[in-house]
Amino acid sequence: MTERFVLSRQIEFNHCDPAGMVFYPRYFEMISATVERFLADEIDYGWTTMGASTGGFGTPMGQIDVRFSNPSYLGEWLDFSLVIKRLGRASATFEITCSGDGKTRFVCNATIVHAETGGGKSQPWPDAARTRMTRFLDASEDPEMRTPA
Amino acid sequence: MTERFVLSRQIEFNHCDPAGMVFYPRYFEMISATVERFLADEIDYGWTTMGASTGGFGTPMGQIDVRFSNPSYLGEWLDFSLVIKRLGRASATFEITCSGDGKTRFVCNATIVHAETGGGKSQPWPDAARTRMTRFLDASEDPEMRTPA
Amino acid sequence: MTERFVLSRQIEFNHCDPAGMVFYPRYFEMISATVERFLADEIDYGWTTMGASTGGFGTPMGQIDVRFSNPSYLGEWLDFSLVIKRLGRASATFEITCSGDGKTRFVCNATIVHAETGGGKSQPWPDAARTRMTRFLDASEDPEMRTPA
Amino acid sequence: MTERFVLSRQIEFNHCDPAGMVFYPRYFEMISATVERFLADEIDYGWTTMGASTGGFGTPMGQIDVRFSNPSYLGEWLDFSLVIKRLGRASATFEITCSGDGKTRFVCNATIVHAETGGGKSQPWPDAARTRMTRFLDASEDPEMRTPA
Repeated sequence: MTERFVLSRQIEFNHCDPAGMVFYPRYFEMISATVERFLADEIDYGWTTMGASTGGFGTPMGQIDVRFSNPSYLGEWLDFSLVIKRLGRASATFEITCSGDGKTRFVCNATIVHAETGGGKSQPWPDAARTRMTRFLDASEDPEMRTPA
Repeated sequence: MTERFVLSRQIEFNHCDPAGMVFYPRYFEMISATVERFLADEIDYGWTTMGASTGGFGTPMGQIDVRFSNPSYLGEWLDFSLVIKRLGRASATFEITCSGDGKTRFVCNATIVHAETGGGKSQPWPDAARTRMTRFLDASEDPEMRTPA
Repeated sequence: MTERFVLSRQIEFNHCDPAGMVFYPRYFEMISATVERFLADEIDYGWTTMGASTGGFGTPMGQIDVRFSNPSYLGEWLDFSLVIKRLGRASATFEITCSGDGKTRFVCNATIVHAETGGGKSQPWPDAARTRMTRFLDASEDPEMRTPA
Repeated sequence: MTERFVLSRQIEFNHCDPAGMVFYPRYFEMISATVERFLADEIDYGWTTMGASTGGFGTPMGQIDVRFSNPSYLGEWLDFSLVIKRLGRASATFEITCSGDGKTRFVCNATIVHAETGGGKSQPWPDAARTRMTRFLDASEDPEMRTPA
């Protein structure tokens, strides 16, 4: 059965815009944090381990799309729930659903590439990381979905 | 002939991540700034005018997708070039291309909705704003493209 | 005895700069979050309650100073520990110490003013909020310390 | 005569909080950008040149204090005006005044340290950089002012 990774976050003043709602670029920081904690805490292959800051491997974003359905407000707790829709040789496509209080706020599809830092070449996932990631692979994945790498 | 709106920005330290490249959530702030200046400076219907902060109308993001092709580095100057791919009754889909030094960094499609603030109902664009926006409507628009509202 | 309010945060990729350390403006977002949670969770007079977003009262920053002593790195857990050094009629001066792994990262003094939103006049703290705040008043406060309002 | 370095910036939606004013942590990004452009454009010793991202020298913030006097709003143009109050062997204390429309928004004093990246030792400014910086040294500097390094 597919596991899901869930990060919970409370909406802070610094996330909100003058209209009193979450400013959508802040969601991308939360999406990044969801991927960050997933790789570090569940896959045991986080950005520190892979050397994203120090010249090793990183996971640059290849493509991302988000459909927003409901606004979010100051003080709300949101869940960012991640499954893998496609696990490529050197890439992974996540579906991240953000919801709170029973309402979906957005659904995001994001494809990261496992690559040498500094804009370098893509490289296959290490075996141990790949094996751990398969637990989060959603069986209902769309076989038509295409991703880079 | 279709006009383009171009915002130029220099990449600063605060945009860059530990891998030394632009951290992709920062691009969404730049995308937001591109739409902000376009609406205010070209369409004369900016967020202050429409009352986004004070309880009037705003332009929440309905859907956004970005394909990244090349990384960007500290000190580089980038152009964010906007055309309108679809102009709906109460929405607009922008294509924003980010490039610098002859290389595309990303292509973004973003659909904003003209709506009452506070998560309110969508409302038609004012006539004057719509008229000005048509100058930026790209004739090569894909007729199949669907957007909310 | 003086109570302390402590917020714990893990350093994320989005907090770090190309030198691989926390980019200091991000600390101010964490300082803001510390004050935000303190007012909401301990004083029961948070920004939502006082109407900071909706036209009521807010707590604009009057003055802030920070002395940095050690850098912070990706993945570290930091504690932001708050006491009140001075409780004015319509203001409060916090001392927020940030530390992790036994090392101080910075010490911050920050004076907020309780005021009408929109740049309005300062107003006395409500009695209930003031009473709760006194539990966090540090007895060793420097009597010479001056703050606005 | 003392020269001033001035950076002008327009306040964007992403800088503003739910109270409709600039969220003060965003000012620290602008302060950082002011120092960044000053060092790169006036002193010809910017963060790229000194190797802040790549393992050379950087200018971590040692101490910063800001006194806020007036709020800033969406769309306003602000000037960030920098002079040097003290030029140490391996440090520099800037006074950065932010104003717009004839009103001061804040006055900031910030001391950076010229040091090896990665939390390394402070190192004297290169001679050429020091010479260029003296043009911005404010003669009215307070001789009692003490800074680290």
